[in-house]
Amino acid sequence: MSIKAPYLLFLGDAADALAAKVAQGIVDWRPQNCVGQLRLANCNADCGLTDQTVEEAVAAGAQTLVIGVANRGGVIADSWIEVLMSALDQGLDIAAGLHNRLSDVPELAAKAAALGRTLHDVRHPSESFSVGSGIKRSGKRILPVGTDCSCGKMYTALALEKAMHDRGADADFRATGQTGILICGSGVSIDAVVSDFISGATESLAPEAAADHWDIIEGQGSLFHPSFAGVTTGLIHGAQADYLVLCHEPTRTHMRGVPHYPIPQIKDCMEACLQTARLTNPDVKFAGLSINTKALNEEDALALLAELEAEYGLPAVDPFRTGVDKLIDALL
Amino acid sequence: MSIKAPYLLFLGDAADALAAKVAQGIVDWRPQNCVGQLRLANCNADCGLTDQTVEEAVAAGAQTLVIGVANRGGVIADSWIEVLMSALDQGLDIAAGLHNRLSDVPELAAKAAALGRTLHDVRHPSESFSVGSGIKRSGKRILPVGTDCSCGKMYTALALEKAMHDRGADADFRATGQTGILICGSGVSIDAVVSDFISGATESLAPEAAADHWDIIEGQGSLFHPSFAGVTTGLIHGAQADYLVLCHEPTRTHMRGVPHYPIPQIKDCMEACLQTARLTNPDVKFAGLSINTKALNEEDALALLAELEAEYGLPAVDPFRTGVDKLIDALL
Repeated sequence: MSIKAPYLLFLGDAADALAAKVAQGIVDWRPQNCVGQLRLANCNADCGLTDQTVEEAVAAGAQTLVIGVANRGGVIADSWIEVLMSALDQGLDIAAGLHNRLSDVPELAAKAAALGRTLHDVRHPSESFSVGSGIKRSGKRILPVGTDCSCGKMYTALALEKAMHDRGADADFRATGQTGILICGSGVSIDAVVSDFISGATESLAPEAAADHWDIIEGQGSLFHPSFAGVTTGLIHGAQADYLVLCHEPTRTHMRGVPHYPIPQIKDCMEACLQTARLTNPDVKFAGLSINTKALNEEDALALLAELEAEYGLPAVDPFRTGVDKLIDALL
Repeated sequence: MSIKAPYLLFLGDAADALAAKVAQGIVDWRPQNCVGQLRLANCNADCGLTDQTVEEAVAAGAQTLVIGVANRGGVIADSWIEVLMSALDQGLDIAAGLHNRLSDVPELAAKAAALGRTLHDVRHPSESFSVGSGIKRSGKRILPVGTDCSCGKMYTALALEKAMHDRGADADFRATGQTGILICGSGVSIDAVVSDFISGATESLAPEAAADHWDIIEGQGSLFHPSFAGVTTGLIHGAQADYLVLCHEPTRTHMRGVPHYPIPQIKDCMEACLQTARLTNPDVKFAGLSINTKALNEEDALALLAELEAEYGLPAVDPFRTGVDKLIDALL
């Protein structure tokens, strides 16, 4: 799946900035791929791009309208249809990471087929995959792993890619979730793959590469999450990472979505991840820790990072607060 | 998914007995569900049932024609279509566990729809599942786990169910693969579920039950298999087993399908399975070991079982050679 850039970002009727976080992620990490934003009358989000109509976006070179807003339930709202139909009419593809499929809306499907436009439902993989082989691939791979879901794995991976590019290294972010796919324009929504093919799909996502090429694979879930650890396991096996980065949110008290499950200790999580990852790469090691310290003040955050560095003998960063240079120093 | 019994077993043009092993499994474990077998002219398998035409099977009370043969590639052979169409015409549903779907054969799909028959493609789950909650469920659960794929997990589970019934215990085999589903008439092909729902589908398969009810859940794959360990992980988490049974084939030198991966040590496999299973049931323990000693002579087989019993302090059986009474003694 490869989405044609540049994009018109559709913010729809986003209730607040958080509802448009997919669009904001694209602006933050791929600003060069964005020509403008389209907001409906009752939109409360603003990604700081030029407001455009579909016509203006097409004139500015847009190739795809990307739905960068999530509403309750992840559905395609009736109020969006007029804009989406107009986008197809005027030559744009459409990409979305919603639960509902664009291709299941009959009028969108019919118009896209008639005009030869592509509807990218990035949450629903359309490729078929092979089962994982476990055969060692050339090139280098990094995989962020986490004590929980939604604790900074995608952000860490994107920050590592950017920092590697800044140092002139050959590196690719490999998206495994819908937001990551919309940000970088390709990837596989790994939790939507049939379970027999989790490791195989991951292998195909980060294929053999030159010896000095880095693939930075977006992590998913946690080995300690009772809902999603199967996905995490297959992803770790398919990734064959040379380096893991432990991601953690230090103020969270329980696993996301399952209040009866406490957050594991960092040490236990690192041990379990290494044990799992060694099956397909016996030489795997941790490059460092990436801590989401947003909920801490500067003093507490820096103290925590120093404490973790002393405890684990590895660099500890917050990609947002401190940047990831310490990790890059250790990796390159 | 629930398949109406009794069955007419379709052996088609099975090249040899092994090609009809699904049919043989149904005869072995659910003889009361079989009214007869239907073989084409060039069939080299025989499950020991009365040979019947579709007409004769219907007269004998058959409700479903079950395709009990697998040919190369798992496809629906052209030579089968005439019989399958006739079965639909005469009132039977059809069930199959093939890669290809019955419902993707246009003439079968059309006739089934016209006549109100059901086509059960048991390898392709049609239900939708919730993500796993990890919430403890009442009742007792047993899960066979293995050092590899295809080392006796289904056979062990079915043998445990039968032995529990023989002792008057309330027990259900819960199928997680296509052969198991065809044998017991219901279940979920867990490796075909979208990966987000592995543990959730398993939870729904073995729901809350009376305190003295046993669910014996069919195991899948291995935590040490680089292709399928994600499935195994989600299955272990969803099962919330009280007891695991370690399944092993002692003469195998490498993991099935991946000759570059050696079989893990039994001890390492047991430790990894316990560590994984403790996430959703901290009290999980091994009930014993189930060794497929088919490739050994009687003396070597019994010596190996004795050796393993001494090493692990747990009963070790071969369900086929020795029966599972020792395991049942430990469980009940």
